[in-house]
Amino acid sequence: MQAPAVSFMLAQKNLSGMDIEIFDTSLRDGAQGEGISFSVRDKLALTATLDELGVAWIEAGNPGSNPKDNDFFKQACQLKLSHARLCAFGSTRKKGTKPEHDPQLASLLSAETEWVVFFGKSSALHVREILKASLNENLDMIAETTAYLVRKGRHVIYDAEHFFDGMNEDKDYALKTLRAAFDAGAERLVLCDTNGGSFPGVIAKGVKTVLSCLPPPQTALVGIHAHNDMGLALACSFAAIDSGCNHVQGTLLGFGERCGNTPLAALIPSLELKLNRRCLPEGRLSRLSLLARRAAEIANISLHDDMPYIGSHAFSHKAGMHADAVLKSSISFEHVDPVLVGNERRILMSEQGGRGAIAARLAGVWRRQSPGGGAELTAGNLPLTKDAPEIAEIARRIKTLEAEGWQFEGADASFLILAHKVLGTYISRFTILAYRVTTEHPAAEALECSYAWVKVLVDGRTEIAAAEGDGPVNALDAALRRSLLGFFPELIRVRLSDYKVRVIDGKEATAAKVRVLIESTDGEAVWTTVGVSEDIIDASRAALVDSIEYKLGHIV
Amino acid sequence: MQAPAVSFMLAQKNLSGMDIEIFDTSLRDGAQGEGISFSVRDKLALTATLDELGVAWIEAGNPGSNPKDNDFFKQACQLKLSHARLCAFGSTRKKGTKPEHDPQLASLLSAETEWVVFFGKSSALHVREILKASLNENLDMIAETTAYLVRKGRHVIYDAEHFFDGMNEDKDYALKTLRAAFDAGAERLVLCDTNGGSFPGVIAKGVKTVLSCLPPPQTALVGIHAHNDMGLALACSFAAIDSGCNHVQGTLLGFGERCGNTPLAALIPSLELKLNRRCLPEGRLSRLSLLARRAAEIANISLHDDMPYIGSHAFSHKAGMHADAVLKSSISFEHVDPVLVGNERRILMSEQGGRGAIAARLAGVWRRQSPGGGAELTAGNLPLTKDAPEIAEIARRIKTLEAEGWQFEGADASFLILAHKVLGTYISRFTILAYRVTTEHPAAEALECSYAWVKVLVDGRTEIAAAEGDGPVNALDAALRRSLLGFFPELIRVRLSDYKVRVIDGKEATAAKVRVLIESTDGEAVWTTVGVSEDIIDASRAALVDSIEYKLGHIV
Repeated sequence: MQAPAVSFMLAQKNLSGMDIEIFDTSLRDGAQGEGISFSVRDKLALTATLDELGVAWIEAGNPGSNPKDNDFFKQACQLKLSHARLCAFGSTRKKGTKPEHDPQLASLLSAETEWVVFFGKSSALHVREILKASLNENLDMIAETTAYLVRKGRHVIYDAEHFFDGMNEDKDYALKTLRAAFDAGAERLVLCDTNGGSFPGVIAKGVKTVLSCLPPPQTALVGIHAHNDMGLALACSFAAIDSGCNHVQGTLLGFGERCGNTPLAALIPSLELKLNRRCLPEGRLSRLSLLARRAAEIANISLHDDMPYIGSHAFSHKAGMHADAVLKSSISFEHVDPVLVGNERRILMSEQGGRGAIAARLAGVWRRQSPGGGAELTAGNLPLTKDAPEIAEIARRIKTLEAEGWQFEGADASFLILAHKVLGTYISRFTILAYRVTTEHPAAEALECSYAWVKVLVDGRTEIAAAEGDGPVNALDAALRRSLLGFFPELIRVRLSDYKVRVIDGKEATAAKVRVLIESTDGEAVWTTVGVSEDIIDASRAALVDSIEYKLGHIV
Repeated sequence: MQAPAVSFMLAQKNLSGMDIEIFDTSLRDGAQGEGISFSVRDKLALTATLDELGVAWIEAGNPGSNPKDNDFFKQACQLKLSHARLCAFGSTRKKGTKPEHDPQLASLLSAETEWVVFFGKSSALHVREILKASLNENLDMIAETTAYLVRKGRHVIYDAEHFFDGMNEDKDYALKTLRAAFDAGAERLVLCDTNGGSFPGVIAKGVKTVLSCLPPPQTALVGIHAHNDMGLALACSFAAIDSGCNHVQGTLLGFGERCGNTPLAALIPSLELKLNRRCLPEGRLSRLSLLARRAAEIANISLHDDMPYIGSHAFSHKAGMHADAVLKSSISFEHVDPVLVGNERRILMSEQGGRGAIAARLAGVWRRQSPGGGAELTAGNLPLTKDAPEIAEIARRIKTLEAEGWQFEGADASFLILAHKVLGTYISRFTILAYRVTTEHPAAEALECSYAWVKVLVDGRTEIAAAEGDGPVNALDAALRRSLLGFFPELIRVRLSDYKVRVIDGKEATAAKVRVLIESTDGEAVWTTVGVSEDIIDASRAALVDSIEYKLGHIV
């Protein structure tokens, strides 16, 4: 194979001011993942979360293939993003069509983003077999699409699909496709390992070949887009960065087509903490675990517990030798300090360690959430340290409940109520004496399909109220609230802002335990409560009661 | 730093007859993972599964720290393993104790395995800080432990804990610890990245340094034991192999301490299919997906759907463009043929999915699942290609339903029923005329908290039945089944094997839509159905009806 007849220069500077540009495609390539489905509202929420983390770019949709994405872009322009730029994604013009007549490109432009991404083919095999076009026609498609988008005032990022396979088949041609985009004005050239089948060594060699075509001392803004089909997306991204790439595409949590994309939540900490390459604004890294969990909630996926850095197991130590060693010298079994990424060390099945963690968490939640705010938590007149017997009792109760499927990690308000029950500082403001929820089809005359009544006891007085709803839980919620409103008018401002159900052990099928998480708000504060039962109505009841108790300021 | 004064020779040949020795530690290091807990029976079942896969070694327990492990080793000697060797795991003798007086080594020997593994410290820092011993004393501990185990007739594998950190701190000393084990008779030297903080480049350099101390032409049996704290365990293992290691330790599914160990199920296929390095006996690789799923059942964990090669998403295709391309040329978005690892391609339905994907999926599901099996699907007398108007209509309906929150990706049976409704080949076998489900607390005298009645119509006859349950859905399920049993006795064998609930748009809180997925089985076939509603009872009812309709062979 002769040396490539390609040489080009990339003039654009890194716009993010970082050493490495982080490009998140959760909303586009991530949405290709099985089980991932975003509403426009989800997309807006995830965009805000990614911006809060401080990524440089958010690729937010493919308006040409998904009409819902246009609604998103219309609404997104009202988001005040502090750091991230939004991009829309599309492809080269259709074979045999002028760009200005291609409806897909019209959709791409209608998103009205300053930056656009489009992909084209770098593999000669794919041009012939999939596109069924001549090699030259493909080059024209890339060049004309770029030029058209530039004429329309857009900054262009070019995704070179199947680049590494293309290099393997016909290196000169693969490089020519990049040059076509670059010569026509693309400002980023992103090398994609589209089917995820390349080893890091192949990626490194490909990146070096591309960069060797650039005359020094120019630093090209060449990017990497890896897939995880061999479990090596992260390693491929590091290999590319080590070889000179300074733009990395991935998805925060790694979800995406098939086995997913490069997980940015695992990439970013290693870049910043181990390789000293800045990729987020100052102070953002320590919010990573929190924002990743929020992103998982928005995407409605379970974050893998074993995810590097951010997973709940990432800094967990089981009893015995290792836990002891960690207490002696944290570096022995922790490669970084969990605080740096906003995660925490957990010592499992170790009374001592468990207590320390609970005392620390209780103090933290109390500081953040107590209505008074800031007052130190005490038992009697003594500060609540990890050696207090009350902490041991809280630890014991949590352990028992967690064995039954409860989880207090995501439910600060329920955790606080449980702790205050143990401390004897919890006063229940109401009791549910009885309730009934019915769902029937067809609905009875003049009734919704679901209706409920609830009878409560408050300060020696009882009240009964009924309500209909969109489902049994909604009916119960409405009836409970109505029964209490006469006693506690402040509840008028409280509403449930999120409701999640998770089947804990699917193998028992419809008799399995379910865990319900409820997020509530009074317009200012937001709090989360949990309930567990084999009966979804009863699990919801438990979480609803905690939610209202928390609002009523039961803690003395 | 002066050149290391180490040179040794490893005389043992690779015993497994493979290019790379696969060493599984699911039962030892894996059992350190959070949420992993094996009974002796689980351990026996997993040992048999790993042997069926054909790994070279199974590290099955730590008898010195876990008394339960001794029961296992007693019973395990009755397993007829076809390929794998069992190892027990321990540590160096205690500081200041003779090996023959160390109870931990006595426990290790009592397992009566031909091969034993023990770990010692390679890091000078750890010797001082954790062990609180002199550097020479640590060398003695390693050498004397090895010599003692060899005298007792054992083959010895030495795990060099924190080896790469040790190399970084004091290279000469780290190499001396290896020599201490080797000179005393250890037959494998395993380099451990214990806290998972090393990049692949560091691993490669460390391995090369160790191997350069060996006089040619000897091939050392040097192993790698990586952890996944940076998401790079797999990449580190490949780097070590590329640098000359021929023994790899990991856990089949990757679970283990913190973020886990090298996932062997992702390592093995790449080694065999991409690097042409044999590591399993002939014919075993194609059983990988099945055996990995069995292992997940035994370990009672959910296999990550996005696991390379074996995950249910590993060869799933969603996007219109990609799914079409895969149908044209599978190499375009699949780096290997899924059949080689016992997995299968799945074309997913979604708003982005094209007609070609729907036609292909329908044909595939029909082939796999139709009671008759194998007959070609037609509309009228015409084959159902992607250009058939019926396919367009199915695509349109799916798109509409998906906009309402339905998802047919994971629900083959509901997809098939929907398609046959469009084709006019669907005959409903029963109708629910009415039902009522009630949940109340406290429970009425002699009633469970949840109870239901269902009235059905079958061939002009009606039947009503009631049942109680562990929750409203369980009660409805029981009542429906009971009402139909007299008409369809074959339903006696059908049971629900999994139940999943997902809140589709949590922002509407308790009035949000929920999607229910139900997996059913009759002991042989397994099928999945879906239902969506704002009412969880009604969503469950829809999925239950599809499940039973599917079993009753409604398709003509």
